[in-house]
Amino acid sequence: MAIRTALTERLGIEHPILCAPMARVSGGKLAAAVSEGGGLGLLGGAYCDESWITEQLQVAGNARIGIGLITWRLAQLPNVLDLVLDRSPAAVMLSFGDEQPFATRIKDAGSVLIAQVQSLEQAKLAADAGADIIVAQGGEAGGHGAQRGAFSLVPEVVDALPDLPVVAAGGIADGRGLAAALALGASGVLLGTRFVATEESLAPEGAKAAVAAESGDVTVKGSVFDKARRFDWPAAYSLRTFRNAFSERWEGTDTLPESAIAEFEDAVARADMNVAPVVAGEAAGIIRDVPSAKDVIPRLVAEAEEKLRGAAALCGTP
Amino acid sequence: MAIRTALTERLGIEHPILCAPMARVSGGKLAAAVSEGGGLGLLGGAYCDESWITEQLQVAGNARIGIGLITWRLAQLPNVLDLVLDRSPAAVMLSFGDEQPFATRIKDAGSVLIAQVQSLEQAKLAADAGADIIVAQGGEAGGHGAQRGAFSLVPEVVDALPDLPVVAAGGIADGRGLAAALALGASGVLLGTRFVATEESLAPEGAKAAVAAESGDVTVKGSVFDKARRFDWPAAYSLRTFRNAFSERWEGTDTLPESAIAEFEDAVARADMNVAPVVAGEAAGIIRDVPSAKDVIPRLVAEAEEKLRGAAALCGTP
Repeated sequence: MAIRTALTERLGIEHPILCAPMARVSGGKLAAAVSEGGGLGLLGGAYCDESWITEQLQVAGNARIGIGLITWRLAQLPNVLDLVLDRSPAAVMLSFGDEQPFATRIKDAGSVLIAQVQSLEQAKLAADAGADIIVAQGGEAGGHGAQRGAFSLVPEVVDALPDLPVVAAGGIADGRGLAAALALGASGVLLGTRFVATEESLAPEGAKAAVAAESGDVTVKGSVFDKARRFDWPAAYSLRTFRNAFSERWEGTDTLPESAIAEFEDAVARADMNVAPVVAGEAAGIIRDVPSAKDVIPRLVAEAEEKLRGAAALCGTP
Repeated sequence: MAIRTALTERLGIEHPILCAPMARVSGGKLAAAVSEGGGLGLLGGAYCDESWITEQLQVAGNARIGIGLITWRLAQLPNVLDLVLDRSPAAVMLSFGDEQPFATRIKDAGSVLIAQVQSLEQAKLAADAGADIIVAQGGEAGGHGAQRGAFSLVPEVVDALPDLPVVAAGGIADGRGLAAALALGASGVLLGTRFVATEESLAPEGAKAAVAAESGDVTVKGSVFDKARRFDWPAAYSLRTFRNAFSERWEGTDTLPESAIAEFEDAVARADMNVAPVVAGEAAGIIRDVPSAKDVIPRLVAEAEEKLRGAAALCGTP
């Protein structure tokens, strides 16, 4: 069975499910697996590290995938877009910044421009900039994001931009979430945390296990890990991770001491998740296994169909 | 048509739609109208003001309604529960505190105990305390709440408490939201902001008009209005309102000067919404009118049914 929507039509894919382009997690193997499963995998181009992108594009081989970039970082390293477009990705997703300076090059190269937004205002700007698809990301998402929840952001963006496919993101990890997103008027979903905990993800094994084990209650939004990584994120965006000893100790501190940064770098190298962050969203609470990404997609589609038929059956008692 | 769920069964109502017990907004008229429309209206008992509750119970007349109380405030004024239970409300909803000290009295009086929670941990505690129904409230809700978004909190609570009806709250204002909540496994919805903007609501007319006009982008969570009202809220909960001149000026200030409090009290008396808060959630962005509360319910039910059938029809392409 398949779920056909404006998103599947626009991207030429079987199921309306995208894998978030997560930095250092969504490598070529994960992106290819998601596309192989019938969705669209997006390589985590993120901070525009040329050698990582080149390497992971090679890992993806001939798979038809897209790639995501952090827009404010791309503005600092605009040539990375050439490297990306040379590969003729099915789509380029831009997040966290003004899409306008890059929109024409992406579309002229034949790629679909996906813009991830966190507010109605940003959605309208992205549409004006020429976005083909809008991802409306709720603040429950793992990684970077803003404040609004997906539950009302998604239908509000759908109402404002009736001609564009709108993809729901944030807090979605199973077929129930896909069903709910479709009911809200979205044309599909973008999942991050669900794909963190897959065989193909590049996340540390400790992070995968934590996502499968913990409640969504354990996440927190902050900036301490961005400071530890010396990333200069715009203040509008914070990072959702699991709370751990390092975040508890340093969150709220303006400037981390060099000793804390050294401790952090060492912990990242050792994948010590008491210090290094489990970058994951509130949807962790409904994730309980670490399957192959390929298997995630048919499972979501079957469950969404079951839930929609079940919910529709509740209606109609005369 | 009707939507039958575990919630409608448990409460003996026609449609799985509750009106949030909003302080100074959900008076007897609104609660009665929601119940008359086939849902369950909950009087905003909130801070346990005996004279207001007595007056509004009288306004509600013989309507079959429930009443909601702020649990930490009830702990300070426990006798208010006798006043409430004397009226034999269909349900008593407790929010923001430990339900355990009050659960037995409520249930022994023949009322259904509804517990509103903001995390999985709180949901489990409420179930242990004897709650009959759990409201899982996402942080996108207007008024007081916590951090987690509804999109994953709802299914996580559903999974943890399979024997209790779970009601979704936060960001829901139309039939799409009801449909999505049912798809996520909830047995119904609790709406606040939608009922703020109704004829029967006690909100200032300026607040109703603002809810109907503005995007969900304009809301913000903070504590400045609680400080101005001299409410001593537990730090875990903040208040979501529309941003206005007063919140912009004073948010982040530890102690408001008496002059600011006087300005605030005067503005509240005059319903000047540049200073007094529009207490509403992100769902404001999908609300565009100020109808009768009675008409809201059949509209939601019809739209939910249409959206569920429409989404189910997307599935099944072989």
